[in-house]
Amino acid sequence: MELLKKRIIEDGRVLEGEVLKVDNFLNHQLDISLLNEIGKEFKEIFKDLKITKILTAEVSGIAIAAIAAQYFNVPVVFAKKTESKNLDKETFEGSVYSYTKEKHYKIRVSKRYISSEDKILIIDDFLAHGEAILGLKEIVDEAQAELMGVGVVIEKGFQKGGDKLRQMNLNVHSLASIKEMVDGKIIFE
Amino acid sequence: MELLKKRIIEDGRVLEGEVLKVDNFLNHQLDISLLNEIGKEFKEIFKDLKITKILTAEVSGIAIAAIAAQYFNVPVVFAKKTESKNLDKETFEGSVYSYTKEKHYKIRVSKRYISSEDKILIIDDFLAHGEAILGLKEIVDEAQAELMGVGVVIEKGFQKGGDKLRQMNLNVHSLASIKEMVDGKIIFE
Repeated sequence: MELLKKRIIEDGRVLEGEVLKVDNFLNHQLDISLLNEIGKEFKEIFKDLKITKILTAEVSGIAIAAIAAQYFNVPVVFAKKTESKNLDKETFEGSVYSYTKEKHYKIRVSKRYISSEDKILIIDDFLAHGEAILGLKEIVDEAQAELMGVGVVIEKGFQKGGDKLRQMNLNVHSLASIKEMVDGKIIFE
Repeated sequence: MELLKKRIIEDGRVLEGEVLKVDNFLNHQLDISLLNEIGKEFKEIFKDLKITKILTAEVSGIAIAAIAAQYFNVPVVFAKKTESKNLDKETFEGSVYSYTKEKHYKIRVSKRYISSEDKILIIDDFLAHGEAILGLKEIVDEAQAELMGVGVVIEKGFQKGGDKLRQMNLNVHSLASIKEMVDGKIIFE
């Protein structure tokens, strides 16, 4: 998606430790027109799959999933990271390893909001090691729903998440895949 | 907003401790068509105010703000609750008291994303004690931006947040204001 790549080049900031900051438009300040274009692109990619629900994880997947859902006419469910008294007791759980924090954490969805009838599209902002998406897949599997596809805005192609998910035959599409980040420069696949 | 009140009656669940759960459509599963109607309603209320940016707080304000922002053609910024290495060092901070957790926590916005030129609309899902909105107002004030309005989806009118904010002459509008919740029944103002 050229518009997105252009924006990443213009406004992305490459920091130490292969961190790419896109908080100007994707996960702190949100450029809603760009999110609309991203949503349309996901719809174009996954249009034949009869998606019934979009699943994402808090926090940074929520706005992307909500805007995209308009083009699919389906609800969004976002998995919660924190145990909250507002979350139902009966939940589907996934486990996510955070490389940043060097520990596992749980993500949860109330059993009310995914069923075995659902055809799920997972949407997230980043795909790096693939951990968040594997955690979401656990939730889909536990609910015996069908995982139809995985839509990612930015893939760090130089990390191994994308390869791992594709070897599992998941239907993964990223809108911009980064081959390398060298001396602050971003090179796409 | 009748459509919203109807939905709250149908799908809201009143739990102990004056908790109203609306996770069926507003803050866990998201009914995107309803969020569109909510966004249009906020636009109608605040249309003359030349808003330049919508400010909300993670987590449950994000989807509402993102969908509403389409009608205002402005970016969204959401304040972050967690200190993350992905957040800039230079931030505007607000302090929020959580009655649920009985402690204060900080919310933060990078100084890059609000300026003294901005005319801010704050959007959030709930107004109860008004704490989250006061925290967001601190951020707006620190940035020397102008707070034009506060749009809330559900106000717990029986708590004191709304009164407090209106006494401060803030331009607060809620789409559904609850007078009381008795024996699981919801009565609007």
